[in-house]
Amino acid sequence: MQSLTVVKIGGKVLEDDRQLSSALADFAAVEGPKILVHGGGKRSDELCLQLGIEPKMVEGRRITDAPTLEIVTMVYAGLLNKKVTGLLQSAGCNAIGLSGADGNAILAHKRAKGQIDYGFAGDIDEVNSGMLTALLNTGLVPVLCSITHDGKGQLLNTNADTIATVTAAAMAANYRVTLKFCFEKAGVLRDPADDAAVIPMLNQADYARFREEGVINAGMIPKIDNALAAKRGGVNKVLICGVKAISPAATQNGTEICL
Amino acid sequence: MQSLTVVKIGGKVLEDDRQLSSALADFAAVEGPKILVHGGGKRSDELCLQLGIEPKMVEGRRITDAPTLEIVTMVYAGLLNKKVTGLLQSAGCNAIGLSGADGNAILAHKRAKGQIDYGFAGDIDEVNSGMLTALLNTGLVPVLCSITHDGKGQLLNTNADTIATVTAAAMAANYRVTLKFCFEKAGVLRDPADDAAVIPMLNQADYARFREEGVINAGMIPKIDNALAAKRGGVNKVLICGVKAISPAATQNGTEICL
Repeated sequence: MQSLTVVKIGGKVLEDDRQLSSALADFAAVEGPKILVHGGGKRSDELCLQLGIEPKMVEGRRITDAPTLEIVTMVYAGLLNKKVTGLLQSAGCNAIGLSGADGNAILAHKRAKGQIDYGFAGDIDEVNSGMLTALLNTGLVPVLCSITHDGKGQLLNTNADTIATVTAAAMAANYRVTLKFCFEKAGVLRDPADDAAVIPMLNQADYARFREEGVINAGMIPKIDNALAAKRGGVNKVLICGVKAISPAATQNGTEICL
Repeated sequence: MQSLTVVKIGGKVLEDDRQLSSALADFAAVEGPKILVHGGGKRSDELCLQLGIEPKMVEGRRITDAPTLEIVTMVYAGLLNKKVTGLLQSAGCNAIGLSGADGNAILAHKRAKGQIDYGFAGDIDEVNSGMLTALLNTGLVPVLCSITHDGKGQLLNTNADTIATVTAAAMAANYRVTLKFCFEKAGVLRDPADDAAVIPMLNQADYARFREEGVINAGMIPKIDNALAAKRGGVNKVLICGVKAISPAATQNGTEICL
């Protein structure tokens, strides 16, 4: 089975041009088929504010009303996705930027209204692994932003960590997949105040115990849950790590998540 | 030689949701391999104004300074390209939205400063017909917006009519190409005040004579020049027409441009 690397980079890396260029050069150096997934960062919030739209968040999740959907589509699928694609091209990586609408890459449905109406938030139904494989077989490197669609002409806003998880799991049917969730720390920390206290390997039992003991930062919980979902979905290796772990020559590998 | 249809739709169609849906349904119904190229419309000007950036035009051409480049990238490659792609998907057409950076689709260089500094305006060096052909062979339908790149990480703003022209000519090496420039009139008019006065066929000699006589509206000149360039580039059939001529069942075919 052929190897495939899926790397997710977060908003913070996208906000720092030097860090972004370095991370993308490292990604360009990864051998074999690969996919990049990127988040959004603060730029969409800034644009909302400039246009007089107050960003609305409930429990860390964005409420995507119609004007906000237009803004995130502009920033994620336009500004950031094309910036990343152009930089990867300049680094010799034949990137192709995609939203979920492009080639029907990611089909989603509008999240049902519960106690909270998340607006145009999309929950994923299916990742088009066949189309992504066809692009990979042409030598292209898909770069996915966090916009999906419902197949009926409606764009939707979907969490980038979830996109990375579901994409990696869908590709795992035909590839031996390594998934790296890169964020601003070097891995899951045993002590949030000590950046060097990276837990090299974390399994479900340890995770349950650490959660109980309050050792793991609350902000890490959705990320670890996504990582575990990827493992359960058949992904071979899942890491939560810093951008320095993108490089094939990396010595810091972050935290490997195991079942 | 296989047939290929290249359709360019302008900004005005993109501004009218009903007209856009109808034009895209007609495009979805076109059989065989096809490519859509779309312009920008007023939305980017509106966003410039909302953000306090005065749109700058010289002789009908936009001056693309750095903040304007960000805005056109957001609007053309983000908002409009994804809207068109999502609508085509809903019409059963497997569209994939692309800027020139995606898969290195369109390589350009920043226009040299002459008497006018156009800023981040891109003049096309090469259309990647091999990559576009690979996408077409996968059953995908490329949807090109008017953002190109220089291969060194710089995005550039390029006229959509020119993109349609150079793309159609590049594809003509391997396809029998029909190129339709769709705009708000039904074709080149013999009398700008009479929408029914469509010239069915216009060759270079007639064009020169009409220009001399002042019969043709000045706004049509760059469009006809592009159409002639496409013919000289080997495009089999070039039409300047209304969006109603997109449909394979169209009875109005606009103006065919000949050498």
